[in-house]
Amino acid sequence: MTRAAHQDADVLRLKRLGIDTYQELVVFMARSSPVCRSEGWAAQSRIQVTLDRRSIVATLNVTTDGLLAPDEISLSEAAWTTLGANSGDLVRLSHAPPLESLSSLRAKVYGERLDAGAIGAIVRDIVAGRYADLELAAFVTAFAQSAVDVDEATALARAMIDAGDRLYWGRSPIVDKHCVGGLPGNRTSMIVVPIVACAGLTIPKTSSRAITSPAGTADAMETIAPVDLDLAAMRRVVEREGACIAWGGRVRLAPADDIIIGVEQALDFDSPVQLVASILSKKASAGSTHIVIDMPIGPTAKVRSPAAADSLDALIRTVGAGLGLALRVVRTDGTQPVGRGIGPSLEARDVLRVLRLANDAPRDLRERALRLAGDVLEIGDAVPSGRGISRAREILESGQALHKFEAICAAQGGMREPKRAPLTHVVAATRRGQISGIDNRRLARLAKLAGAPRAPTAGIELHARLHDSVRAGDPLLTIHAEAPGELEYARGYLAANPQLVSVDETL
Amino acid sequence: MTRAAHQDADVLRLKRLGIDTYQELVVFMARSSPVCRSEGWAAQSRIQVTLDRRSIVATLNVTTDGLLAPDEISLSEAAWTTLGANSGDLVRLSHAPPLESLSSLRAKVYGERLDAGAIGAIVRDIVAGRYADLELAAFVTAFAQSAVDVDEATALARAMIDAGDRLYWGRSPIVDKHCVGGLPGNRTSMIVVPIVACAGLTIPKTSSRAITSPAGTADAMETIAPVDLDLAAMRRVVEREGACIAWGGRVRLAPADDIIIGVEQALDFDSPVQLVASILSKKASAGSTHIVIDMPIGPTAKVRSPAAADSLDALIRTVGAGLGLALRVVRTDGTQPVGRGIGPSLEARDVLRVLRLANDAPRDLRERALRLAGDVLEIGDAVPSGRGISRAREILESGQALHKFEAICAAQGGMREPKRAPLTHVVAATRRGQISGIDNRRLARLAKLAGAPRAPTAGIELHARLHDSVRAGDPLLTIHAEAPGELEYARGYLAANPQLVSVDETL
Repeated sequence: MTRAAHQDADVLRLKRLGIDTYQELVVFMARSSPVCRSEGWAAQSRIQVTLDRRSIVATLNVTTDGLLAPDEISLSEAAWTTLGANSGDLVRLSHAPPLESLSSLRAKVYGERLDAGAIGAIVRDIVAGRYADLELAAFVTAFAQSAVDVDEATALARAMIDAGDRLYWGRSPIVDKHCVGGLPGNRTSMIVVPIVACAGLTIPKTSSRAITSPAGTADAMETIAPVDLDLAAMRRVVEREGACIAWGGRVRLAPADDIIIGVEQALDFDSPVQLVASILSKKASAGSTHIVIDMPIGPTAKVRSPAAADSLDALIRTVGAGLGLALRVVRTDGTQPVGRGIGPSLEARDVLRVLRLANDAPRDLRERALRLAGDVLEIGDAVPSGRGISRAREILESGQALHKFEAICAAQGGMREPKRAPLTHVVAATRRGQISGIDNRRLARLAKLAGAPRAPTAGIELHARLHDSVRAGDPLLTIHAEAPGELEYARGYLAANPQLVSVDETL
Repeated sequence: MTRAAHQDADVLRLKRLGIDTYQELVVFMARSSPVCRSEGWAAQSRIQVTLDRRSIVATLNVTTDGLLAPDEISLSEAAWTTLGANSGDLVRLSHAPPLESLSSLRAKVYGERLDAGAIGAIVRDIVAGRYADLELAAFVTAFAQSAVDVDEATALARAMIDAGDRLYWGRSPIVDKHCVGGLPGNRTSMIVVPIVACAGLTIPKTSSRAITSPAGTADAMETIAPVDLDLAAMRRVVEREGACIAWGGRVRLAPADDIIIGVEQALDFDSPVQLVASILSKKASAGSTHIVIDMPIGPTAKVRSPAAADSLDALIRTVGAGLGLALRVVRTDGTQPVGRGIGPSLEARDVLRVLRLANDAPRDLRERALRLAGDVLEIGDAVPSGRGISRAREILESGQALHKFEAICAAQGGMREPKRAPLTHVVAATRRGQISGIDNRRLARLAKLAGAPRAPTAGIELHARLHDSVRAGDPLLTIHAEAPGELEYARGYLAANPQLVSVDETL
């Protein structure tokens, strides 16, 4: 095969067209190219592009109207980056080698069980960029099926760990916390991390950007300090401060996860198995040994019922045990958003209010963070059982947590104040009554339509909480946006979904 | 929503760049475009493009290097066609409306049952071009799960019928035959159709192009006569000759099927539910009432075992009954390819040999076609039960079938001889022995690597059949190709897969 593939190789010159396809690797070639003809390639053919010793597999888009000369090819922006190529470089083209792991993927689609070897091969091919976006979508869908069992979930998590770098810290415990998500504004990590570090524990927190939510911890943190740290920078920050709050995508910890998340984001879904594999592979890759999992439960949170929580809890514990991790799952209230802001900057502002002990700091965010910090202190054996939350409160109220947070930001490259959005629109109650329901999902969608997380200052500021009494004209929420079109779009969605915040007139 | 979407609308000028992305609808826009900024669009945003009263939803690719001016946008070739646009036209852009049916798709991914309403909404959105390729891949994968039940399969088939045109012939029976596939070279339809039409039955045969095989009936027929008939042309041919052999993709019969097949082809998989929905929706849309299904069974055919045949048979009967169709499922030998050729032209040549009663006509292809034609004659009540095959043989041997086939070709636009490939490579036995196994799947893959079905004359000619004795040096098969790269690639694959045709030395 290799020999034949080499004989097929054809050399062409790269020309930059500047086409951004997000993460899909695309190669553009003229229909008039002799290579296209001799190799029998057409739009959607999978082609291997080799520069020196580096190769990518890309999907062909054929150009017809003189965009490219017959001896030229171009790449999508993601493909330029992955291949490390420059305009003018000469590359060799050949048929993409057959992808054996696709047979296993097909078997999984049809409901067969896969062993660890098959799952490992799939994940390695994904990390190597050999899966087309369509194939990634099939992978995400197949592993979202209920027919995926715990052994497969464990194998998936382990394969995701093995297909990337892994940090070793030379000490134990290495603690961490993670929220399974689904609750807008739940930015406790940025408070928990400095508290825990003050108590002498090591907490190298890597977090993701938003998957289907208006903001991830990395998005919010980035409005205050750089989060795009490489392994060396992250290690330096942690050695100095005992903690970091970094984006996990830059350090190659479980890189399969970032690719998979890109597709989940486009499809706007994820699944228990992928959620667990994603969380635990990232944590284990970061060298964490003792982990607290925040699991908010509520009718419009990611985990909707105690029964769903039981099953996710069991999956987390089983997979975690398989990976040798000590875990504590903490069930929390998921009936309404946490804090006031929803969106990167707005959430970051809430966090700073708590750390700065401001009078207007959101009490619910503070209390959740203290509870979770207490759990981390206990699981990490920094305090005796039952003493965690009071110790966490001491650290916060003494100002040590703020000081540590500032030190972490400085170590990551410097602290700044989160910006405010240029455009806002206040939505007021149209009648008096009591707030009887807040739809997390629709609220998250509203914040996303307003531009979050891509537009960091965009999002929603909630002025009312469940059971609050309001009068007609009282502000319920403020939409923040960076672009007029997005503000309008969010307003249109709100007009069509007035039940997003329910006001009950029984008062 | 509608009002807000209209306020968002922005007008830009279309410029043709000539980028062929296969069937994915893509819109290209400069990052410097004020619209991109004001709407908050980025690569992979879903955007509605409206020309006069016609709209498409396309995926955004952002251009950075001066390819487009700030007030220009471009489209992928498929999007130009679907929108019916020309370079210089002014189009309105707006955010794609939220796609409610995606919630149902997500529910299906997680294993929930969908009702007919939910499935209908998904299929209508697919036909309207509102699903991105990633979402189509998720759809195909979700409906390939074993957790899809017969009610869902029936609802899917019915939705596919409803979301397209339907032919009414004003008489009954309207007969048809279809093969579930997986058996290279099984081109019986082109023989069955003229025989059945000679007996006075109406058989408006529409067939697909290859999904995962080296040739579909439409691909093979196209090497002899035009198959790209619109509804009026198809009706004219059938009124004149009682039959046609047309490509089903042009007439809007179950158009969802063609979109789904495009994705299945890229993913190289399909599933029982989609197979049955695809077959029966096409047949019912074409107005057929009585249908014979050829189901080849063999270890490397699509249906691998009697047990798999039982389950597919049951699914076909149940869904067929739900659609009001009379069905006969005929199980046939699927242990080796039918006839000699694999690939559009090569298979067409085998068909012509049978119709022309040539001495070198493949006997197996003739006998299978006669058996199936006999079944169609019986289910269509043209002959008493048990008399079908002998009547079919009379019609073939009298030369009437050839005459009818030529008349059908003439009515479809004119008959021509299938061409031969410019490049061939003969593979000979390396030792004496008996042919003990032929791997249909690998053989199909080999024919596809050689260029079939896109290159119509490409494919494989088999010189030996199961249980034949061969000596060292005897030709086993000939690879046919149109491009040197493809010939090399096929040879490389064969070298790596010598067990494709097994020779047992026990002789």
